[in-house]
Amino acid sequence: MIIVMKRSASQEDIDTMIANVESLGLKANVIQGTERTVIAAVGEERVAGISSLESGPGVDEVLPILAPYKLASRELKPESSTVTAGSLSVGNGTIGVIAGPCSVETAEQILACAHAVKSAGATALRGGAFKPRTSPYSFQGLKEDGLKMLADARDETGLAIVTEVVSPDDVDLVSEYADVLQIGARNMQNYRLLEAVGKSPRAVLLKRGPSATIDEFLLAAEYILDGGNPNVMLCERGVRTFESHTRFTLPLATVPYVQQRTHLPIVVDPSHGTGHTSLVTAMAKASIAAGADGLIVEMHPNPDKAMSDGYQSLNFAQFEQMMSECRRIAEAVDRELGAMVPA
Amino acid sequence: MIIVMKRSASQEDIDTMIANVESLGLKANVIQGTERTVIAAVGEERVAGISSLESGPGVDEVLPILAPYKLASRELKPESSTVTAGSLSVGNGTIGVIAGPCSVETAEQILACAHAVKSAGATALRGGAFKPRTSPYSFQGLKEDGLKMLADARDETGLAIVTEVVSPDDVDLVSEYADVLQIGARNMQNYRLLEAVGKSPRAVLLKRGPSATIDEFLLAAEYILDGGNPNVMLCERGVRTFESHTRFTLPLATVPYVQQRTHLPIVVDPSHGTGHTSLVTAMAKASIAAGADGLIVEMHPNPDKAMSDGYQSLNFAQFEQMMSECRRIAEAVDRELGAMVPA
Amino acid sequence: MIIVMKRSASQEDIDTMIANVESLGLKANVIQGTERTVIAAVGEERVAGISSLESGPGVDEVLPILAPYKLASRELKPESSTVTAGSLSVGNGTIGVIAGPCSVETAEQILACAHAVKSAGATALRGGAFKPRTSPYSFQGLKEDGLKMLADARDETGLAIVTEVVSPDDVDLVSEYADVLQIGARNMQNYRLLEAVGKSPRAVLLKRGPSATIDEFLLAAEYILDGGNPNVMLCERGVRTFESHTRFTLPLATVPYVQQRTHLPIVVDPSHGTGHTSLVTAMAKASIAAGADGLIVEMHPNPDKAMSDGYQSLNFAQFEQMMSECRRIAEAVDRELGAMVPA
Amino acid sequence: MIIVMKRSASQEDIDTMIANVESLGLKANVIQGTERTVIAAVGEERVAGISSLESGPGVDEVLPILAPYKLASRELKPESSTVTAGSLSVGNGTIGVIAGPCSVETAEQILACAHAVKSAGATALRGGAFKPRTSPYSFQGLKEDGLKMLADARDETGLAIVTEVVSPDDVDLVSEYADVLQIGARNMQNYRLLEAVGKSPRAVLLKRGPSATIDEFLLAAEYILDGGNPNVMLCERGVRTFESHTRFTLPLATVPYVQQRTHLPIVVDPSHGTGHTSLVTAMAKASIAAGADGLIVEMHPNPDKAMSDGYQSLNFAQFEQMMSECRRIAEAVDRELGAMVPA
Repeated sequence: MIIVMKRSASQEDIDTMIANVESLGLKANVIQGTERTVIAAVGEERVAGISSLESGPGVDEVLPILAPYKLASRELKPESSTVTAGSLSVGNGTIGVIAGPCSVETAEQILACAHAVKSAGATALRGGAFKPRTSPYSFQGLKEDGLKMLADARDETGLAIVTEVVSPDDVDLVSEYADVLQIGARNMQNYRLLEAVGKSPRAVLLKRGPSATIDEFLLAAEYILDGGNPNVMLCERGVRTFESHTRFTLPLATVPYVQQRTHLPIVVDPSHGTGHTSLVTAMAKASIAAGADGLIVEMHPNPDKAMSDGYQSLNFAQFEQMMSECRRIAEAVDRELGAMVPA
Repeated sequence: MIIVMKRSASQEDIDTMIANVESLGLKANVIQGTERTVIAAVGEERVAGISSLESGPGVDEVLPILAPYKLASRELKPESSTVTAGSLSVGNGTIGVIAGPCSVETAEQILACAHAVKSAGATALRGGAFKPRTSPYSFQGLKEDGLKMLADARDETGLAIVTEVVSPDDVDLVSEYADVLQIGARNMQNYRLLEAVGKSPRAVLLKRGPSATIDEFLLAAEYILDGGNPNVMLCERGVRTFESHTRFTLPLATVPYVQQRTHLPIVVDPSHGTGHTSLVTAMAKASIAAGADGLIVEMHPNPDKAMSDGYQSLNFAQFEQMMSECRRIAEAVDRELGAMVPA
Repeated sequence: MIIVMKRSASQEDIDTMIANVESLGLKANVIQGTERTVIAAVGEERVAGISSLESGPGVDEVLPILAPYKLASRELKPESSTVTAGSLSVGNGTIGVIAGPCSVETAEQILACAHAVKSAGATALRGGAFKPRTSPYSFQGLKEDGLKMLADARDETGLAIVTEVVSPDDVDLVSEYADVLQIGARNMQNYRLLEAVGKSPRAVLLKRGPSATIDEFLLAAEYILDGGNPNVMLCERGVRTFESHTRFTLPLATVPYVQQRTHLPIVVDPSHGTGHTSLVTAMAKASIAAGADGLIVEMHPNPDKAMSDGYQSLNFAQFEQMMSECRRIAEAVDRELGAMVPA
Repeated sequence: MIIVMKRSASQEDIDTMIANVESLGLKANVIQGTERTVIAAVGEERVAGISSLESGPGVDEVLPILAPYKLASRELKPESSTVTAGSLSVGNGTIGVIAGPCSVETAEQILACAHAVKSAGATALRGGAFKPRTSPYSFQGLKEDGLKMLADARDETGLAIVTEVVSPDDVDLVSEYADVLQIGARNMQNYRLLEAVGKSPRAVLLKRGPSATIDEFLLAAEYILDGGNPNVMLCERGVRTFESHTRFTLPLATVPYVQQRTHLPIVVDPSHGTGHTSLVTAMAKASIAAGADGLIVEMHPNPDKAMSDGYQSLNFAQFEQMMSECRRIAEAVDRELGAMVPA
């Protein structure tokens, strides 16, 4: 539930209320607004004694949160959130573009990508070092060596690094090198991993599972928020349907629907969402027109020779063209493809 | 297969080739280009004697059509087709917008819609007179009375009329009043109906079935083309998936994918594709950014009182706002929301 | 709603009540039970004057039908229905087995199938004469010639004939030759066709559309019942999902679910439901274990040479083996694979 | 690839071949048959030097494994595998039945379940101690306390314990108490977890993800096998589709399809597969008729008061009835519902 404090509430009132909430076995999340403080009390519903909170010192009103997710809901926080991580800013009118190869393959490859990303005006570099692969016999990523190559690319270009983490045990290691921890679609309901990134100081990009409902998606985000990490970006990357001409079906209505229900920004991945290079740019543009707060796109110096996902990667020229077309759509919706955030 | 005639081929050469094709039990469809004539020979594959065609008088080359659909394929006709019907033009850079209520309810209602459609700058009026309804006990439409009201609205506004036909027996009647015959999603594989509209002089808007593959969709169009009617617009209106927060899942990647495979224009229906008024405008904009050749949108003077589909209909002010936002996206992709074609 | 008449109600009371129902603009369907008469009053809900029915002569009680389908619901008719058509009986503990080729190809082929069907102990012959085909260039069936071959096979073997009808205009013709009219999955919501078979004296086998919900399925049956034809068998033949190792996904939970909601019998089609010969027998057995009232199975003298659907057809030896395995399952659920109904 | 050794091959020949395989960077898995030894060489395909293996001492032939999964494939091991864990045996004609509550709630509850499971003739006890829950605010299980209650129930009844593990870090702990480690559907592609259970001495029950293809499912099993644990049972528990009258859609064709491709046994979960108590028994019977090697079923002393999944749990009387009906189906397919394996 949401406890809206009066404008006149003192810090002592707030501390008292936090103690009251915690004494009921609930967790208190304090959201400091410009004019008022709001306390979200979350936990098992139907706890005895809740009504007593209303009469606490400095309380204006107590409201239920109807959505199953609480910290993620717009009921709790009506203003949209902006997530910033290094050079990347996503939300509130700034469209962040994250681009790079599926896998980090060599220092040269990732550096070439980084320069192409920066030169086309995108704001963060992606690249997989820990790769969750369908087959145990496929390339599993360069692991820490890959992370180092990413960090070197950041040193040279200033681009924020977005990379996947696949196990709770790796969160600390990946957090050392990355600006944004990506949770892949297959791990959207790996709750231990969500709890672990909830304790990391890094921002998180949470991909929707291929058959997750929106409620399940936002409840997965809630695990991270509930763990103490408020910097969560959602990512729609396509759902699994009977359609076979695309790798997944990219349901862009997720964008406006999610924006009505949560304050968290939503990024779209048109690469996995289509699975074909020739469809990526059209869907990147459509995503921005639908109101997406960001894009994450696969590109590679030589897609035909990529170690993974080459068939859905743009080459550098295609990526630059995509950026230029997307910039026009962004203007037509009164937003801008974000410049890099100064260090 | 495609028989490409030489530039120097005479009409007699062409007639000879048509006769040769027909003597093999195939159907000859003649496509008159600006410089050359092309003959599509379609029918059962692996007919004996096909190789004899190559040596016919005036033949340049004979090429197979690899797609299962033939007349619909870009292999046969590389240039995009434009479909024009009364005030409506769709294709080749002109985005047609068809709008109106789900059902024609009264003369006043449909006339009010027509004026709102025209005033917002859209180019055709939709409205159902024959309604296929899930329950036999639901309102089934005003039938011929509804068609007359639509025709009256055209007389007053000049807008082309788009309305559904649900039975082969009604095709002649509906063709008397309408400019475009709509085939609903439930009838996409009602082959007798497709054959019947294939013989009508009216253009056809063919909606994709909610679980049809793209090949099935284009083969349904092929039935109409094969019947002799070249004026087919495809319409993506959403597919059925596990997602329940939208009525259907609207897969906009259909737009660029289909445009790679067929010369027929593709229209998107964001009303059925989302099922919620609050999502329609975002998806209309996304459709245009993805490259759609047209939109078909439900609107109503008073959505709360609509006899059907009110929850997904825009009111007049919302529709006008949608048009104005879509116009900006159209400009950003170097296309225009089409003006009415002069009578 | 359901008007339950008293045991003591006279024919005059019943006639009065029918007139009252009709005067409210509702349709009266009279169901003569062994002890009482029940009148189903169906039509637009919330008609004024309904409460007046309760006080009519001979009325015991008036109950609402909560399901959107009325005549199909178990609320209206708690006892399961049996559908009988020629040699075929389906329902109430008798499992009917319908088998035969996808398409009628020649008189010899269909006759050979009929003998194999009969000899294996199945009770009806299927075979398509009017074929709805995805491509206009595929074999469309032998039409009336095929119907005659089917009728000849019935004359020789006594087997009831089940064959598809694809257009309202063909219903009379097909009804002349067939015992059961099959409505294919693509036509499940071809309401004009449903209305037409609703007026035929023949029984109907209604296949579920590949993305139809159960409510949509039962409402399609309602169109037929509402047209006056009570002899409707439902048929589950698989739904379209992301799974690609089977042609469709066969959801056998449909069987017990539907049996809870409707009195109509339910038949399963394991041939289309799997799309692979090697999976048909296992799923036929599973269907019977789940409680299915019947099976419809594709078989062919020489599946490799079939004009359609050979990859999912059993040969005669496989069919005989399937029947013998299914007979054991039927016994284990205290039902029997039905013998032919004597002429 | 599969290296089939001659019957006359010596242990030295086998050791030489293993060394050769490993020198190519491949992993050698030795499968000791009754008559011959087979060595599976798995790893990155297209390794140079493979052809040299054919001429090794004692080699009969070298065959490719066409399936993407290797150790799981029937190509490698044509005979079906049996998995035995405590009182539970699954495969090769013995149908194992695992039953119990969704969550371990109290010592009394789990003990009552254990007695009911044993008395009805089932062979293992399930119960969740570590619960992956959609919402962070839902009951997350009793953790180690729950494991202890399960172990106590085993001590009292002799039933093998099946319980879920959700994190690599918990595998050792859960392995101390459980006979079978369950990998839930949400974790089917949690590869670190699969690797961890691949190193456990306990058998594994691997549930199919709700949108996993069969290849993805068997490749997930391959991770476990490749880790060194051969005791893997697959479990079909329903896939996510547009159907909403059941919680998931239970596609029983998985059973015969998977049995054609892998030697691993396959268990069905009709509780999650339907989501409704009233559908469980019919689908349990159908599973056995389709050839399933086992069942896993949710039951509870008082389903209405269960802390999770009560709506799909059987009470004790319903479970006993289910067992008795399933026993008859098992006999009709010449298999038996397995008795407990003696300690």
